[in-house]
Amino acid sequence: MSDSFPTDSVGLVEPQVYHFDEPLPLRSGKSIPAYDLIVETYGTLNPDKTNAILICHALSSDHHAAGFNSADNTKPGWWDACIGPGKAIDTNLFHVVSLNNLGGCSGSTGPASINPLTGKYYGPDFPVITVRDWVLSQVRLMDRLGIAKWAAVVGGSLGGMQVLRWSISYPERLDHAVCIAAAPKLSAQNIAFNEVARHSITSDVNFHKGRYLEHDTYPKQGLMLARMVGHITYLSDSAMRAKFGKSLSDLEQNSTENFGRDLRSGKLSFGFNIDFQVESYLHYQGERFSENFDANTYLLMTKALDYFDPSVDYEGDLSKAFEKSDCKFFVLSFSTDWRFPPERSREIVTDLLKAGKQVSYIEIEADQGHDAFLLAIPRYIDALSAYLKKVHKELVDDAS
Amino acid sequence: MSDSFPTDSVGLVEPQVYHFDEPLPLRSGKSIPAYDLIVETYGTLNPDKTNAILICHALSSDHHAAGFNSADNTKPGWWDACIGPGKAIDTNLFHVVSLNNLGGCSGSTGPASINPLTGKYYGPDFPVITVRDWVLSQVRLMDRLGIAKWAAVVGGSLGGMQVLRWSISYPERLDHAVCIAAAPKLSAQNIAFNEVARHSITSDVNFHKGRYLEHDTYPKQGLMLARMVGHITYLSDSAMRAKFGKSLSDLEQNSTENFGRDLRSGKLSFGFNIDFQVESYLHYQGERFSENFDANTYLLMTKALDYFDPSVDYEGDLSKAFEKSDCKFFVLSFSTDWRFPPERSREIVTDLLKAGKQVSYIEIEADQGHDAFLLAIPRYIDALSAYLKKVHKELVDDAS
Repeated sequence: MSDSFPTDSVGLVEPQVYHFDEPLPLRSGKSIPAYDLIVETYGTLNPDKTNAILICHALSSDHHAAGFNSADNTKPGWWDACIGPGKAIDTNLFHVVSLNNLGGCSGSTGPASINPLTGKYYGPDFPVITVRDWVLSQVRLMDRLGIAKWAAVVGGSLGGMQVLRWSISYPERLDHAVCIAAAPKLSAQNIAFNEVARHSITSDVNFHKGRYLEHDTYPKQGLMLARMVGHITYLSDSAMRAKFGKSLSDLEQNSTENFGRDLRSGKLSFGFNIDFQVESYLHYQGERFSENFDANTYLLMTKALDYFDPSVDYEGDLSKAFEKSDCKFFVLSFSTDWRFPPERSREIVTDLLKAGKQVSYIEIEADQGHDAFLLAIPRYIDALSAYLKKVHKELVDDAS
Repeated sequence: MSDSFPTDSVGLVEPQVYHFDEPLPLRSGKSIPAYDLIVETYGTLNPDKTNAILICHALSSDHHAAGFNSADNTKPGWWDACIGPGKAIDTNLFHVVSLNNLGGCSGSTGPASINPLTGKYYGPDFPVITVRDWVLSQVRLMDRLGIAKWAAVVGGSLGGMQVLRWSISYPERLDHAVCIAAAPKLSAQNIAFNEVARHSITSDVNFHKGRYLEHDTYPKQGLMLARMVGHITYLSDSAMRAKFGKSLSDLEQNSTENFGRDLRSGKLSFGFNIDFQVESYLHYQGERFSENFDANTYLLMTKALDYFDPSVDYEGDLSKAFEKSDCKFFVLSFSTDWRFPPERSREIVTDLLKAGKQVSYIEIEADQGHDAFLLAIPRYIDALSAYLKKVHKELVDDAS
């Protein structure tokens, strides 16, 4: 069956669940008594266990980063563009570890899991998780896997923030930090969009103060809206224009009767139905997402973003936060990303340099906005590939 | 009582309602059998009736552009920064006419008015109005007022679009078109944000398919969300940062215990309460708006924006749309406006030049984003003031 998978795919992948019984102390002061983490791995761990790369996921992703979960599954993992044999994160060279973060809704313990203390869904009782809590849970996972040090920790967006936290909190446990399309902390505008998303969810009548699963329902409209807003911020204005920006005249020359710009009907509705392709696209994205994602998880993830600010323990000076870091850094940004624009990545680079750290930085020209980090953009793939080849060469040299 | 008003204010203003009995044919093919327009005027109409300026309002504004509606009213009209004796739109020189557009909710006939045919609220039966419908209703108003030609038609944002439509559809009825912070048509991203706003409203359980007034309720949460999203797009990232971007370290040096960035409590909630100032600001703005604006009107206004594209009757060539225009143009944009950025204004200018029209253009450096057009930014006020002084000089010269 796996013959049907592309040759540069990791092919069929089976996730594994690891159970942790030791309570996890959280930044909030609360703790989680026990929890599961669901994990996928790609490529072979070498005997010295030195070739492992950790993938940290973004807001709505999960452990399924590459390959296929069943033979007839046509949709590959979310970062299949970058992970596979011969790809930028080359599974011929590296053992790649990808997990669903705690609080997620794809198999790791989260708000949609049963709370063993009550026998009911955690729901809103699931504690708020911060980036540093995730990284601690990832340290435990690496201990379980017998990995002493990551060759690299790699992530984009919220994943890039986990990468930064790794370099600050566990300097001895990674050689390279690859931070893609991230920011040192959220801007007021970022937080504002997150709050709109949260308010959409919590004001949905089906939210039931977070106990919607007990009511056998979920805040579908709220999640839809949250995703629609999110989606706008993931795409650049230019990407949207390229995708949907056709004017009427491009579509229906000279037809002033057919005033509409709706590619489907060719007429404006003069009502509140969908008139433009971008509207149906957003509806589709929002609807699909709302059927597959847990609303409480969405709330948690956005709060983790809002709270992220590693400078907070260092009098607001991020360069001081990096002082004890002992890895090399690779920072990447995308020209049309307006969620976490290149300026924000350059802030990270500036503070790394101020702290005397070794850092490479590249700004990729790409039209796709924030979403670019998920895509097979040649210059991006080449840059990431070249960097990780060097990482691999280092570890081969170290071993010999 | 009016002694208490600032000396550069138009002071106490009483709006007037004009009733129109002739049916208004609409772009949609429908028509409105009869309607009211509520109007304010400031400054004196000269005997020749040549010094009148029409103000066109934006998405959520109304006829109350300057001065005060009662002696104890502390909040002046929405464009009081620009309209008044000695101000940029100088009421010592001009007779300024400002109306609430048809479909509005501040006194002109709109969805919250009673439909004379049914005796019930129009609600969702109120027809979709386009920018050209508004301009036609404004032509009728000017006829009623006995004004043959506007010295200038002036508007920002959606108001600027009405200005463009005036210049295209009624070239003989204005001398100057002042188009501020507008665009020749909406981008896909603009439409996407509007659709999020509409979906917020229509998916609110209290929307009742637009008949919420009959149910003695209104879609408060939906309107709140719509306004919150809108508000983010009116402010620049930098304006938000300046207003709310303080990091924890700015607030509570060295206090790692007090990890929070909430200016009010000094602690993160580790829950889904409000943690950051920008969140409470948005809630406040959204809540206040939802209590004062009609949801069906909001839907109408956003559709008017989405549908605006005067090039549509000219094979998509805006320069051809301007060919018959017979006024002079002044186009203004603001550097950090990301809703209708300077590029969009330059598109208008380019097509005006292509059509051989006389146009002045200025891009104002301003940190305040799209909202800048409402504010007393010195360089903006100076530019607008200088232009309108020239307009006044022209009409004095013409008369002599």
